[in-house]
Amino acid sequence: MPKAEQLSTSRLEAFSDGVIAFAATLLVVGVTIPHLTNPGSAREMAGLLRDQIPNFLIYAVSFGTLTVWWLAHHQLFHHIRSTDRVLLLLNGGFLFFIAFLPFPTSLVGQYPSNPAASSLYGIVGGLTGICVLAIRLYAGRPGGPMDAVLGPDDRRRFLRRSAMSPCAYFGGAVLALFHPGAALALYAAIAIYFVIPLRRRAAAQDGAPGAPPL
Amino acid sequence: MPKAEQLSTSRLEAFSDGVIAFAATLLVVGVTIPHLTNPGSAREMAGLLRDQIPNFLIYAVSFGTLTVWWLAHHQLFHHIRSTDRVLLLLNGGFLFFIAFLPFPTSLVGQYPSNPAASSLYGIVGGLTGICVLAIRLYAGRPGGPMDAVLGPDDRRRFLRRSAMSPCAYFGGAVLALFHPGAALALYAAIAIYFVIPLRRRAAAQDGAPGAPPL
Amino acid sequence: MPKAEQLSTSRLEAFSDGVIAFAATLLVVGVTIPHLTNPGSAREMAGLLRDQIPNFLIYAVSFGTLTVWWLAHHQLFHHIRSTDRVLLLLNGGFLFFIAFLPFPTSLVGQYPSNPAASSLYGIVGGLTGICVLAIRLYAGRPGGPMDAVLGPDDRRRFLRRSAMSPCAYFGGAVLALFHPGAALALYAAIAIYFVIPLRRRAAAQDGAPGAPPL
Amino acid sequence: MPKAEQLSTSRLEAFSDGVIAFAATLLVVGVTIPHLTNPGSAREMAGLLRDQIPNFLIYAVSFGTLTVWWLAHHQLFHHIRSTDRVLLLLNGGFLFFIAFLPFPTSLVGQYPSNPAASSLYGIVGGLTGICVLAIRLYAGRPGGPMDAVLGPDDRRRFLRRSAMSPCAYFGGAVLALFHPGAALALYAAIAIYFVIPLRRRAAAQDGAPGAPPL
Repeated sequence: MPKAEQLSTSRLEAFSDGVIAFAATLLVVGVTIPHLTNPGSAREMAGLLRDQIPNFLIYAVSFGTLTVWWLAHHQLFHHIRSTDRVLLLLNGGFLFFIAFLPFPTSLVGQYPSNPAASSLYGIVGGLTGICVLAIRLYAGRPGGPMDAVLGPDDRRRFLRRSAMSPCAYFGGAVLALFHPGAALALYAAIAIYFVIPLRRRAAAQDGAPGAPPL
Repeated sequence: MPKAEQLSTSRLEAFSDGVIAFAATLLVVGVTIPHLTNPGSAREMAGLLRDQIPNFLIYAVSFGTLTVWWLAHHQLFHHIRSTDRVLLLLNGGFLFFIAFLPFPTSLVGQYPSNPAASSLYGIVGGLTGICVLAIRLYAGRPGGPMDAVLGPDDRRRFLRRSAMSPCAYFGGAVLALFHPGAALALYAAIAIYFVIPLRRRAAAQDGAPGAPPL
Repeated sequence: MPKAEQLSTSRLEAFSDGVIAFAATLLVVGVTIPHLTNPGSAREMAGLLRDQIPNFLIYAVSFGTLTVWWLAHHQLFHHIRSTDRVLLLLNGGFLFFIAFLPFPTSLVGQYPSNPAASSLYGIVGGLTGICVLAIRLYAGRPGGPMDAVLGPDDRRRFLRRSAMSPCAYFGGAVLALFHPGAALALYAAIAIYFVIPLRRRAAAQDGAPGAPPL
Repeated sequence: MPKAEQLSTSRLEAFSDGVIAFAATLLVVGVTIPHLTNPGSAREMAGLLRDQIPNFLIYAVSFGTLTVWWLAHHQLFHHIRSTDRVLLLLNGGFLFFIAFLPFPTSLVGQYPSNPAASSLYGIVGGLTGICVLAIRLYAGRPGGPMDAVLGPDDRRRFLRRSAMSPCAYFGGAVLALFHPGAALALYAAIAIYFVIPLRRRAAAQDGAPGAPPL
């Protein structure tokens, strides 16, 4: 029944896209409207907005992170030919932490210097990464639904990448206990890192068979 | 006009996926940001987050429940070939209770030991299940739009499963009046149960004609 | 360039479905969590939930109304073969009032006996209906993008139906000034009316060429 | 691998549509429910709603603006045949500012006469426009993924249009410092302008090869 399975893969992707897109758009709800004592004062508004700069920055980091997760999910499922219940469960876990991200984002936005808030952000990121790693391991097992387009070298390289992300986030969660701001910078760096290197590699392999589509 | 009807089935599924995905993502809005007296204190934040553990747990249960409903809806409509107004109405009722779930989730998250809150959660779950059961009965009636891929045995088994879910939820709603926490554990168990057994069965029937796609 | 235009119709429908589905799911945000003085009291919770019954009812009416608008939109665009900028604008107006509906819904939910709140609800409903009527008139004009499957009789009947909805809503907006509760009952009746008769007619014409797909 | 790339374009469009549709629907959350001292008084409610007219107007401007961005995005990607990582990044920036728009909208809705609020609205609009301009420049570069249907004349005309929008918004952001209300009127005018002229031009070129699909 290949057609049915393909359908379910595409519906899974559409559902996942929906959750990621909503979570990204919902982040803005955590950016609170400042309360002015003098409604017409540009100076007071500018000052209150300046106080919210950490809030804006963590909003940007979370939005960027969700975009990167969307790309990673996109690329991963591009090579998965069919779904089963284990895969749906692992994907459900992934979406659970994606949909939860607005909470630690608001927490860090309101309490940027709090070690526990910054640490929770890293833990949620790390758990998201573990779900992606588990999807890759499960789908890429011998006889699994990952297609043969990816040779063993590509698989190993992708696997290493997928393993790096939870390590980096959990490292950030520990770092946050000593220096919350440095951990936030690390979270931003993770998002940037996962955008840049792939592009370089894609450029290097341009035209090579099996090159990643992104 | 078979093409038109197929289109409407696919648009109905897309609309339903949208509502379910959005309801799942909206759940996080009910997880309130704690108010700290000392913004930089990791200890105070950790304590307040610990107090929110019931809130996180019920969030996880509701997210899991919505994922299971999505799977059930997916599987159900996989076998329905066309829609009519009655089906759209029954599906509208299903989506109504799905979209309402964030309310009892917030209620239970804030008042986990309140019998009425825990009971309302079960009532909403039970009404959702009744809508799914009604869709299955209506679509599977003689001459209905459910396809012939499912033999009478499969139909009966699916029907039994669909009937179990509202019974379990309404049972939980009664149990909640005496022991709200036990009812919440039951709601979690329902979500887990509806994920696990199907998988076992699917594995057992692997390759058999007519095996459910999920 | 027929392919390009078909694409744009399907993307317009997907965008509209998204807005309607989000608006329907967002309604629940307007149902406020009651504040209990005794967190564990089932009696107090039950009492506060009973006080929210108007809130639940108007939530249900708005959810049903949005489902009916979705059906009407679905059916209308089923017969429209291509889009142009005027149609996109009229559809944008339709979506504007759809997306605005959560506001009067919250207003009526919190102040069910307030004439101005109940009247605003009718005005928003009436303006939504005027947009649908304008889409039908514009698309169905001689040489317009409405297909020829609908004969002149069908077109006139559909037109009459589309004209009825804004009349009924604006009638409700006036009625609300004297009897807010009666107006709310009328809004519920409009949603029910637009579900039932079409079904009867569809049944009567079953199999007839040109029968509406819903 | 042309098929894979086409898929990724369509998934990118679906993701973008989701974010834009959701941001448009989320705007209503910023329209606050007024607090009445006399819940049944139509006069008090009417007065409070009258006070909210700036809030309604900026809601309408933002909704219209998002619809115009959706149209522009639609039209732009209609001519882009494949995506790469740079395009995904630029599109991510576009979606970032789209998803952020509800914040300045609420800010202006609550403080319509505040110069800093009105200016921030223009800055966010201008940054959105810069992302669209960058997408057009990058995709339309020699050897880029923009298709050959658009001749050099069309490209130049589209480019000029895309360059106008950030200029107008940043102009508004400066104007806002001296006259916040005039800037808001300019933002409304920008949305209206980007709807009207294209329609006129499309009518003039009707049937001409390479005419824009909208």
